[in-house]
Amino acid sequence: MSKHLYRDMELLKKALLTLGSMVEDAINKAVIALVDRRSELTHEVITGDDLVDDKEVEIEEQGLKILALHQPVAADLRFIVGVLKVNNDLERMGDLAVNIAERADYLAKKDVIGVELDFPRMAGAVQKMVRLSLDALVNKDTDEAKKVLLMDDEVDALNRDMFVILQNVMRNDSQTIKRAVQLLSVSRHLERIADLATNIAEDVVFMVDGDTIRHKTEHYLE
Amino acid sequence: MSKHLYRDMELLKKALLTLGSMVEDAINKAVIALVDRRSELTHEVITGDDLVDDKEVEIEEQGLKILALHQPVAADLRFIVGVLKVNNDLERMGDLAVNIAERADYLAKKDVIGVELDFPRMAGAVQKMVRLSLDALVNKDTDEAKKVLLMDDEVDALNRDMFVILQNVMRNDSQTIKRAVQLLSVSRHLERIADLATNIAEDVVFMVDGDTIRHKTEHYLE
Repeated sequence: MSKHLYRDMELLKKALLTLGSMVEDAINKAVIALVDRRSELTHEVITGDDLVDDKEVEIEEQGLKILALHQPVAADLRFIVGVLKVNNDLERMGDLAVNIAERADYLAKKDVIGVELDFPRMAGAVQKMVRLSLDALVNKDTDEAKKVLLMDDEVDALNRDMFVILQNVMRNDSQTIKRAVQLLSVSRHLERIADLATNIAEDVVFMVDGDTIRHKTEHYLE
Repeated sequence: MSKHLYRDMELLKKALLTLGSMVEDAINKAVIALVDRRSELTHEVITGDDLVDDKEVEIEEQGLKILALHQPVAADLRFIVGVLKVNNDLERMGDLAVNIAERADYLAKKDVIGVELDFPRMAGAVQKMVRLSLDALVNKDTDEAKKVLLMDDEVDALNRDMFVILQNVMRNDSQTIKRAVQLLSVSRHLERIADLATNIAEDVVFMVDGDTIRHKTEHYLE
């Protein structure tokens, strides 16, 4: 690899990690806003999303420039195309954090529905998946990536639990329906962020092994 | 553009359109299964998704091969990276169709909730967006792409209507809650497919104008 390609790829990685931190921060704030009923935090997430969007555009330009200038092949080519896809996934996670924040803002202005919902645990697992998937990417570490794939089942189960609990809440008190539907959305959005982290982890394995395990995850984990 | 690059790009386009048709077909079947309560159709969608997944992997390989072999620059480079992103979006639409089919299967085995829900209209708009976004891509037609961006608002509005109707249904009869939650999911999944078509349309404009309108859509439509 030429010195210039190496340098540009390091800069690209750094930019992607910056975007990753911004998105992790947004998810974190959105969930704290939800759990602690803090409207002012939701606004930070919503306005901060413009910066996430700008960063995504910047990284895409940076990646395209590297492809055009250095015309990398093999592993380097796979890595840069992988970064462009992950870039996209991170931006979508940012949108989901905004969506959670909007629902947190709505809920903070209403009474609590009075049932224990373990969003901190679910969000903790989701954030860990995001972090691990990015670590796996920059270190080209398939072991880290596999951890993410395993954690996805845990988050799916937590999402299903939320559905059961919230449907019961609605059944017992129809006054809670609107709020419960908002909470169902939050749960689903967290689960979608976990899915996106899973996509990233799958892309890492694809990139490193040069072979796709996408759509073959179960077999891979046997 | 070299003759070989031209030929390979035409093949790539053709493969992407094939995937697009497969996904459109899956969405179509999933919604018919839902509306006409036909479980056997849901199974076609669910088993057919393996073919969608295989096609996505094949297109990604094809795109990477073109990048490595021909090292295209400028518009050609943007186009191929665009195809790789759209490829991803189509595969996700396929997953969403499966998810709709699973819910249709569940609902076909239960009583109807007895309220008029215009899923055919919503699905019609969504399918039109998918079709238009792919046409826009292969013809590099930003006018078609802009139509998709405008239609997204219509689908968002239909999704919001569904939410209002279904929340009322749940409020009036708590026996409907589980089915109504499934129907909310279907509505949301259709809206996500529309969002993915919108992403594709934005990518087309980005590709053609060499300038991103992503995150600036409203300004663009002024």
